[in-house]
Amino acid sequence: MNKSSIIVSQSQKIIRILRLKVTDKPGFLAKVTSVIGEAQVNIGEITIIGQGPDFILREFSLQLIDIDHLNAVIYAIEKIDGISVESIIDPVEQIHEGGKIAMKSRVKVDSLTEMRKIYTPGVAQICKLIERDITLSRKYTGIGNTVAIVTNGSAVLGLGNIGAVAGMPVMEGKSVLFDCLVGISAIPILIDSQDPQVIINTVKAISCTFGAIQLEDIKAPECFEIEQTLINELAMPIMHDDQHATAVVALSALKTIALNTGIDLNTCKIGIIGLGAAGIGITRLLKAALIKDIIGCDLRSDAIIKFEEFGGKSGDLNMVMNQADIVIATTGVPQLIKPNMVRPGQIILALSNPVPEIDPELAMQQGAKFAADGRTINNALAYPGIFHGALRSKATCITDNMKLAAAEAISLHTKTNNLVPSILDYKVHQSVADAVSLAWFQDLHNFNNLKS
Amino acid sequence: MNKSSIIVSQSQKIIRILRLKVTDKPGFLAKVTSVIGEAQVNIGEITIIGQGPDFILREFSLQLIDIDHLNAVIYAIEKIDGISVESIIDPVEQIHEGGKIAMKSRVKVDSLTEMRKIYTPGVAQICKLIERDITLSRKYTGIGNTVAIVTNGSAVLGLGNIGAVAGMPVMEGKSVLFDCLVGISAIPILIDSQDPQVIINTVKAISCTFGAIQLEDIKAPECFEIEQTLINELAMPIMHDDQHATAVVALSALKTIALNTGIDLNTCKIGIIGLGAAGIGITRLLKAALIKDIIGCDLRSDAIIKFEEFGGKSGDLNMVMNQADIVIATTGVPQLIKPNMVRPGQIILALSNPVPEIDPELAMQQGAKFAADGRTINNALAYPGIFHGALRSKATCITDNMKLAAAEAISLHTKTNNLVPSILDYKVHQSVADAVSLAWFQDLHNFNNLKS
Repeated sequence: MNKSSIIVSQSQKIIRILRLKVTDKPGFLAKVTSVIGEAQVNIGEITIIGQGPDFILREFSLQLIDIDHLNAVIYAIEKIDGISVESIIDPVEQIHEGGKIAMKSRVKVDSLTEMRKIYTPGVAQICKLIERDITLSRKYTGIGNTVAIVTNGSAVLGLGNIGAVAGMPVMEGKSVLFDCLVGISAIPILIDSQDPQVIINTVKAISCTFGAIQLEDIKAPECFEIEQTLINELAMPIMHDDQHATAVVALSALKTIALNTGIDLNTCKIGIIGLGAAGIGITRLLKAALIKDIIGCDLRSDAIIKFEEFGGKSGDLNMVMNQADIVIATTGVPQLIKPNMVRPGQIILALSNPVPEIDPELAMQQGAKFAADGRTINNALAYPGIFHGALRSKATCITDNMKLAAAEAISLHTKTNNLVPSILDYKVHQSVADAVSLAWFQDLHNFNNLKS
Repeated sequence: MNKSSIIVSQSQKIIRILRLKVTDKPGFLAKVTSVIGEAQVNIGEITIIGQGPDFILREFSLQLIDIDHLNAVIYAIEKIDGISVESIIDPVEQIHEGGKIAMKSRVKVDSLTEMRKIYTPGVAQICKLIERDITLSRKYTGIGNTVAIVTNGSAVLGLGNIGAVAGMPVMEGKSVLFDCLVGISAIPILIDSQDPQVIINTVKAISCTFGAIQLEDIKAPECFEIEQTLINELAMPIMHDDQHATAVVALSALKTIALNTGIDLNTCKIGIIGLGAAGIGITRLLKAALIKDIIGCDLRSDAIIKFEEFGGKSGDLNMVMNQADIVIATTGVPQLIKPNMVRPGQIILALSNPVPEIDPELAMQQGAKFAADGRTINNALAYPGIFHGALRSKATCITDNMKLAAAEAISLHTKTNNLVPSILDYKVHQSVADAVSLAWFQDLHNFNNLKS
């Protein structure tokens, strides 16, 4: 009994909140909890949300296997006299209702005197200051602390090309993290087009609204052209998250693994399986970290060409698995790496979400020295601090050194026995920002020395 | 002495906060306030902001005539032993520092459990819901409560074409009002282009990010083409503030004036001086209100053509002043209307800011029945409620009836002896939103009846 309930709880995948009207007499709460327990459902929080003349409204947070399991427990509850189900709430849907972000005032408007300062006529004085010296927009507007999160929804999470509007919940989530982790005002911009030129033109046209541009969930190969063109044409920090933030976190994980296993990253052979946005971003950053020996594979020839352009040596899946000391897979193909492909002593990062290329436990059983999946290699460890550092130092671009510094900062913050730090460890994001700022000033200094 | 100080205080136009280090002994505060009083400066709040071993840091809010007046008082203060000026703060600049708005999270992210709901993996479930049914983006994202405030900065306040970035403080101010008055998330979008087609293409490309579009401070005649094209091509509320919100507030003022003076708007002749965005917007709304007899003038021939297109009869300034019972001036030209042009019994709204076409007091002296300037005819009385009502009712456009309903609601809320209500009277904005919602449903009902 005890053992079976543990098994059930491990496979419990959905959470629902049941709002129940429970008769306000001794014994009725016990009846409900008994019935729920008998249905093998784990109960989380129980809260009182209202009270009637002879009943109490309570919400029960339940962990269930699936919808059938939910239906079974509701059926059982409804058979009890004196208890009725008022509503069934999906807490994930609930938290997204009405959107997760909003543009808020940072000033109080509680008198006409304040109004006259923030709006007409007072505001005219500030407009004139900026008209005379546009750099004052950094001081008197929020532009310098604002990032646009630009997407066309063509490569959202593991969901593919779901369109810009369906991608909005992810963009809002990124904006939430920007606000909560580093205090940046991040504004989702949805562009309903698959045409790189439309995206480039649109971003250029609105770029003066923002201090920096984060390109997000735009599919390869369009993402490369869009990012490179914008970097060439706009003097502001621009970064395609899926390429570079992922690469920064992957490199920081490799640094930690190297430290723990005694491997020298600069002399070992690294294999990249899947040469999309993440695979190419990782390749570029590893090259910038002076790691020379990188092999890779992909089924698409344009991906191979891109990979070779950045100095990778291409082959097929078997070649990579046979030769690489460290394997990083970002294909989006579940269980692509078969257990018999794993060589003893190999290090494997199977990063695709939600299902990795190989289950880390399985890889370890096959003799891998270390294996992890993509749940921990979360690019939210990197992008808030990178943009915070870049904006704070008024950087005009994001250099390789800034990304390398970010990876180093994340790795330094990783606790013993962990692969990466927790995203909710606020100090990591400040350390990343500090390191990125410093790297920018060093680059600027070196650049100025070169010029003089 | 008493009388002269009243005169000084009436002409006091700038506010500065002086931070003074004042010796912490009895009598020193009196010395400072005496010197300030002798310089004919009014003192507002005095606050303690710090304390040292033998001094107190105090901030004095002062109302002054101009910078010379400020210099004189500082000079006088610095001559006192035991008092020193630490800093001079401009409270208008201070309130704008760092920007007046920021994108904030509406959800708490204090545990990995919450993270997994708002971000990956939980968010994927919400993306899929929207992918299947795009209308659910209204429920699960903030899109339906978001307005873009789009400008190219070509006609900002009375400042002219100062560019998009210099216009940002105004856009942030409008966003503050949207948030504080009706709880709408309003996002400034600066487009650095004078080309109507670039603005149209850009707005179309990002339109799915927002529930509605407010065009702002875009100069005539480009504003007409931009607005009309966007209305034709996008099924969402789109409104050029400077045309229509100004018109709504002007019409509400006319309704109030008519009520108080016994004039019948439908039988009198209305003259519009200046046929830019505001003049044309007012003409169109008066026509929609079934006011037939509208005459107008402008120096630009394209403005005249536009005016005649909407049913106005054109002439010159003298003709309008000679014939119109009600004159509405929106030229941006200070003191354009000479006192001898005013006819006894005329009603004059000289709306240009900061200096009107004629000082209302002067017009009254010339025998006008009623005169007002633009300080009170503030379009912020109209646009928050209009967009709130339109978004709440999921309107696909903003109809004439919605604007007329807004004008009626504002007029109904005006207190006796006032021309319009206070912007900070929150109930006005709710009434406007209610009236606009209702008008949309009536239009929709009539439209459906016509179809069937």
